[in-house]
Amino acid sequence: MNPFEFTLHATDGLARRGTYMTHHGPVETPCFMPVGTKATVKALTPRDLRDMGAHMILANTFHLHLRPGEKTIERLGELHGFMRWDGPILTDSGGFQVFSLADIRNITEEGVRFKSPIDGALVNLTPERSMEIQRALGPDVVMAFDECPNADMTGRELEESTDRTLRWLERCLSVELKPHQALFPIVQGGMNGALRESSARRTIEAFPDAKGYAIGGLSVGESREQTYAMLEHSIGELQTDRPRYFMGLGTPRDLVEAVDRGVDLFDCVLPTRNARNARVFHPDGNLNLRNAVHRDDGAPVQENCDCPCCTQGFSRGYLHHLFKADEILACILTTQHNVRYLIRLCEEMREAIVKGQWEELRDRILCEPSE
Amino acid sequence: MNPFEFTLHATDGLARRGTYMTHHGPVETPCFMPVGTKATVKALTPRDLRDMGAHMILANTFHLHLRPGEKTIERLGELHGFMRWDGPILTDSGGFQVFSLADIRNITEEGVRFKSPIDGALVNLTPERSMEIQRALGPDVVMAFDECPNADMTGRELEESTDRTLRWLERCLSVELKPHQALFPIVQGGMNGALRESSARRTIEAFPDAKGYAIGGLSVGESREQTYAMLEHSIGELQTDRPRYFMGLGTPRDLVEAVDRGVDLFDCVLPTRNARNARVFHPDGNLNLRNAVHRDDGAPVQENCDCPCCTQGFSRGYLHHLFKADEILACILTTQHNVRYLIRLCEEMREAIVKGQWEELRDRILCEPSE
Repeated sequence: MNPFEFTLHATDGLARRGTYMTHHGPVETPCFMPVGTKATVKALTPRDLRDMGAHMILANTFHLHLRPGEKTIERLGELHGFMRWDGPILTDSGGFQVFSLADIRNITEEGVRFKSPIDGALVNLTPERSMEIQRALGPDVVMAFDECPNADMTGRELEESTDRTLRWLERCLSVELKPHQALFPIVQGGMNGALRESSARRTIEAFPDAKGYAIGGLSVGESREQTYAMLEHSIGELQTDRPRYFMGLGTPRDLVEAVDRGVDLFDCVLPTRNARNARVFHPDGNLNLRNAVHRDDGAPVQENCDCPCCTQGFSRGYLHHLFKADEILACILTTQHNVRYLIRLCEEMREAIVKGQWEELRDRILCEPSE
Repeated sequence: MNPFEFTLHATDGLARRGTYMTHHGPVETPCFMPVGTKATVKALTPRDLRDMGAHMILANTFHLHLRPGEKTIERLGELHGFMRWDGPILTDSGGFQVFSLADIRNITEEGVRFKSPIDGALVNLTPERSMEIQRALGPDVVMAFDECPNADMTGRELEESTDRTLRWLERCLSVELKPHQALFPIVQGGMNGALRESSARRTIEAFPDAKGYAIGGLSVGESREQTYAMLEHSIGELQTDRPRYFMGLGTPRDLVEAVDRGVDLFDCVLPTRNARNARVFHPDGNLNLRNAVHRDDGAPVQENCDCPCCTQGFSRGYLHHLFKADEILACILTTQHNVRYLIRLCEEMREAIVKGQWEELRDRILCEPSE
């Protein structure tokens, strides 16, 4: 396979089983991508990630531009050399982070000006700057710089925001990336179905040769019914021969709902963040290992789980103790469990799609307690 | 070999190369024992420890009695099952920690009463209690409950303290341990050479069949010259056919100085604590990875080091970034380096002693910059 080629091996309903090739190896889809915001998936080593079957991971332009700066990372071997991850990497453009994390000073047609949360300095981020930064960072997949509207934005304001993301896409396209990089544009449109559809159509028009398309601006506080409805409006317009990336989904139910609608890639900080808060996935209902009920419990987090934490026999009681004692090992082990849980779910989804057993798997996961 | 048998394979000067057998496998000496105060060597998994060649590790009676409590640990498989470490384990008796960490309410002949740093409750620790707790925790080697005098204690007060440790030893011996456990008595005597000698002689008198002897109350703030002088006074009286454990030594120089005087076992929190503060061992002088000089440095912490951090090619620049960003991976990687550094030094010491090249190795290490 050539880099950036996407091969569909099987479909079952709208669910798709594919392989997306990059210069750093293949990504088997559906694929959950662990988030390594600051060039590290928190509490895991690259070796852990490989052993657990991770294919592609994320890093963030916003955070890495502020510290240590893209020039340092480029000098130290780009992201792959810097963080010693030789598999595929995708970077977010900074758009979402500016709108959700920064103290914004103003948004203009030119870009966004915000105050650095690290030292208070004023920083400008524009479509061109975001591309230059991501070019220096050197991920395989570069995301377009977009405006991410609030879930409650409507009417003229939302239309203008959606238009701006499209104009920004044209400017992103004016910046040449490195030969091993591909740019994914991002479909927006807020909570307006018609706008979602037109955003998808106009995105394809503006960039028909994109090696993949992303759906952004969802999972930002709206109801799950809205999320999936907007996903359907967005994805219905996208070509079937390119991977579709839903930005920011990370519960087992969410993954299944997204795959059921034709999504191939997703990412989320939730499994890793929850793990550091002692909250671990379990098919019978997620657990909070800080709860006193786990204190004397010799059972593993999950029977028959193949994650490093469960296979090595660490008990809920031990993990409870580690959390109470603020020990780093607590975060290491629960992060291993949560990340492997989602990666294994993706492996199961891929197998089910190939075997024509998608509905069976989907319905099983959707019957689990949602917590 | 039978459990608790100590076989001396070679000596070179006073330096000794031996094997100490336990029910959980052999300990090759000289051996540095990483400290897992709260039943975890901070930032490392048991698998990391095994891969790095650790033989025996420590845990602490004081901390584990307060949380989660020895009964919980016993129910969850004693320390070995609880923390999933199937190699040898040694527990400190709580004596040193009570005297260095606790808000002591009173010291009597009976024992020590102190305020729990966790919930403020009053806790009594006596020789018998310490033995009962360590029996429940289930380590291979149990330490006697001793009084650890300040470095500046002298005269009658120091004599009384040293006598009390000996009386407490008799009471420790009255408590039966589990069949897989051995009790090490602790030689005290403060900074008084004659008292050190008499403490050693009387300790052997009180417990001639001990499977090993420890030297305590050193490395508590005195000069290094004093440390080694007191070590010589203590060790000169000990039998040669039993392992000698120096409590609390953890720099490469200290290890070499101790082995040069006939010590077989040592432990220290320094390599792991320093690692979490970005301070890593290096033969040309230790590094502080937070220093800005490392920001753009693509070199590993140490060329040709065989630790997981260095062999996987993580750069000083990347580690600098991880520390600045407060990322857990920073502590994981630097702890791997520092612990492996001392374990490798022990491997080198064992080889040098067998080959009759001890002086050469010793002098090389002592020529390294001390910080």
